[in-house]
Amino acid sequence: MVIPRLIERKRDGGVLSSDEWHALVNAYTAGDVPDYQVAALLMAIYFRGLGTDELSALTDAMLASGDRLHFDGEPRPRIDKHSTGGVGDKTSLILAPLLAACGVLVPMMSGRGLGHTGGTLDKLEAIPGFRTGLGLRETESQVRNIGLAMIGQTGEIAPADRKIYALRDVTGTVESIPLISASIMSKKLAEGLSGLVLDVKIGSGAFLPEPERALELARTMIALGEARGCPTIALITAMDRPLGFACGNALEVAEAIDGLKGKGPADLMEVTLALGVEMLLLAGIDGDRGAALRRLESTLGSGEALARFRRMVEAQGGDVAVVDHPDRLPRAPVVRPLQSPRDGVIASVEPRALGRAIIELGGGRRAVTDTVLPDVGLVVPVKPGQRISRGETLAIIHARNEAAATAAADAVRAAISIGDSPVEPPPLIAWRVSRAGAEPPGATPS
Amino acid sequence: MVIPRLIERKRDGGVLSSDEWHALVNAYTAGDVPDYQVAALLMAIYFRGLGTDELSALTDAMLASGDRLHFDGEPRPRIDKHSTGGVGDKTSLILAPLLAACGVLVPMMSGRGLGHTGGTLDKLEAIPGFRTGLGLRETESQVRNIGLAMIGQTGEIAPADRKIYALRDVTGTVESIPLISASIMSKKLAEGLSGLVLDVKIGSGAFLPEPERALELARTMIALGEARGCPTIALITAMDRPLGFACGNALEVAEAIDGLKGKGPADLMEVTLALGVEMLLLAGIDGDRGAALRRLESTLGSGEALARFRRMVEAQGGDVAVVDHPDRLPRAPVVRPLQSPRDGVIASVEPRALGRAIIELGGGRRAVTDTVLPDVGLVVPVKPGQRISRGETLAIIHARNEAAATAAADAVRAAISIGDSPVEPPPLIAWRVSRAGAEPPGATPS
Repeated sequence: MVIPRLIERKRDGGVLSSDEWHALVNAYTAGDVPDYQVAALLMAIYFRGLGTDELSALTDAMLASGDRLHFDGEPRPRIDKHSTGGVGDKTSLILAPLLAACGVLVPMMSGRGLGHTGGTLDKLEAIPGFRTGLGLRETESQVRNIGLAMIGQTGEIAPADRKIYALRDVTGTVESIPLISASIMSKKLAEGLSGLVLDVKIGSGAFLPEPERALELARTMIALGEARGCPTIALITAMDRPLGFACGNALEVAEAIDGLKGKGPADLMEVTLALGVEMLLLAGIDGDRGAALRRLESTLGSGEALARFRRMVEAQGGDVAVVDHPDRLPRAPVVRPLQSPRDGVIASVEPRALGRAIIELGGGRRAVTDTVLPDVGLVVPVKPGQRISRGETLAIIHARNEAAATAAADAVRAAISIGDSPVEPPPLIAWRVSRAGAEPPGATPS
Repeated sequence: MVIPRLIERKRDGGVLSSDEWHALVNAYTAGDVPDYQVAALLMAIYFRGLGTDELSALTDAMLASGDRLHFDGEPRPRIDKHSTGGVGDKTSLILAPLLAACGVLVPMMSGRGLGHTGGTLDKLEAIPGFRTGLGLRETESQVRNIGLAMIGQTGEIAPADRKIYALRDVTGTVESIPLISASIMSKKLAEGLSGLVLDVKIGSGAFLPEPERALELARTMIALGEARGCPTIALITAMDRPLGFACGNALEVAEAIDGLKGKGPADLMEVTLALGVEMLLLAGIDGDRGAALRRLESTLGSGEALARFRRMVEAQGGDVAVVDHPDRLPRAPVVRPLQSPRDGVIASVEPRALGRAIIELGGGRRAVTDTVLPDVGLVVPVKPGQRISRGETLAIIHARNEAAATAAADAVRAAISIGDSPVEPPPLIAWRVSRAGAEPPGATPS
């Protein structure tokens, strides 16, 4: 294997064999191929893409580079949900316990926030004592016992992905659909799932804003999952505004606890339930959408979903008192409301700008090595299309000091446009994508 | 300067500013930017190209990364010739002394062979004692004193190019016209020239075989040279067959000595004289092609060109005895002729295959770190289109042992096709390219 010849072949639009992908990934993981050669190859992949067989081979090689969760002999369905990332997206915190309470096993491996998007691990770690660094055997055991675990990508899972992702992050090769797909799916396939629901965001705050690219990403990941015995479907959902009101780690946990009682903001509940329905259908627990939706709503209403969240917090070392008393979550010393300067109609709430304001407050990351504050963030209770009067609350800023609050107030003011014309925001759920194709949500009865 | 953002901008078809190119090249040369980021950027450049201003800035930054030759107050014209590389191309060995004998200063910085193409430095070093590692001040002094010096790229010249070239070589980013142009021109502009003639090869044995790509490379380098006050022209010449008969280091020196007497193979003399005419015209020594050609021929015929070669060999520590007695050059122990197996017409003599055979004999390099043997090689006295009879000499193989000679004989047999139909090889000189455009050779009276 002469690496420059492989790079040239990919560069010139050629194809690498399955053996070549496996040998390359193994050699890179072992430190036998230098970063600079892989960086050049990644950029060539960015431009040339990967054929179906190549993408399968790369994903398999990344998956095979590490360990995986094993659920041998386990008859219960195992379903996970993965989102491409957004602002205010705390659906995972609601869905994992909710589905576990419905009899689905949810072995959920999540990431940390980076750039303008938040991360599930950072949110969970806002709960004092909560451990996300469980080992694989401990995770398997917890999932079997209480139906769910929410953990970080351990060093044991897909170490090749970890190394390749770190390199992509510093070489301008993140936004490649085959590379994103291989990265996500190599980790998800390591979870030992019987089904996977993807939440692929579109709109200005999404990683891939354009619907066409998001659809391509969804189709690529679905093909990878289906070919590997993991039925996969995707919802394409709106990230042209934040999801829910709360943006920031502890603030989002508190809102998720509302959601676990069925009382979260309407948009958050709509997306959460739509994803939950797909998870129940994939699990085979319900045969139609109506039944699945009723099951989710009754599980929220009965307190079973919240009870399951409490069990997980306890199992993973977190302070369960915050579940019943969210006011015990870390709280920033400065809490300042921001009023609307005029009457009008909310024209837009820019999630990317809000995400950057949260980074400025200390609640997000510019670089992987940054630490995040649990308590800071924003609550933005207004949505595009909504009428607002002068003096009504546009946002509540949670900051470490007055100067930071002032800077955040300026950023939030700039992120929220108020006009006079009526505004019709795009639907929260744009498409449902399965291996059969893309369709409007709810078009298929089952 | 956040490097991943620069990489992304180039990847997405954007433009880096002159300041950004300079900062990037300086930081990379200083070791402050890692190889993997530059590797990704180089691959993005491969796909996206460079705008005119970007290419100028990159070239200038590479040039500015090191020292250069200074000829302040020197009234005589300084002209160099650069070839993109071929098999059997020993024109530099003839041209530098020939032009020096005509009153042109020739500060010629050359490279070593790599892959199937030979290198001028390796050929010169076949002369016992010959030093190519002159410092810049020594080079300036020798050029002023005897009119020429033939040296290697010292560490003082364009260290950024040296580092970038080494990275391109192992990352599949060699064949990029802007990167090739910046690399060549950053070194040539460091020679303090008043004019430059480029020999851009086309055909199966050329670095860029396709005429369109070769023309693009020529135009790009011409634009770079002209914009920097160095009038530049290019001849596009044939490398679908070797140039001359001898291929191999000492063998080519011997043939160059024939050439310096005006007695080299016809194709070698034709290309050498065409390049020499362009050099004399650029130097302003002759006003028209006819006068220039007559001057070259008379300088060869009078022995002045050979005398100038002898002076250079002496000045650079070489054994001058070989100039008058080329049989004193290193000679391989096994010299074996290869006969034509049939009557017919030579259909093709594949230079790339011959170049590879020379590597097998030990006379070329696979990797930059390989050492080369001075004595081995091939003499192939047949040319496409020529009639041949069974038993006539196809080639003479110079090898270190019988086994190597046998392997080379097989390779040479495979490299030479003999047919029955008449063959009309393409012209040796396809185009003359100047800033005014490309034209057939000799179309312009001046």
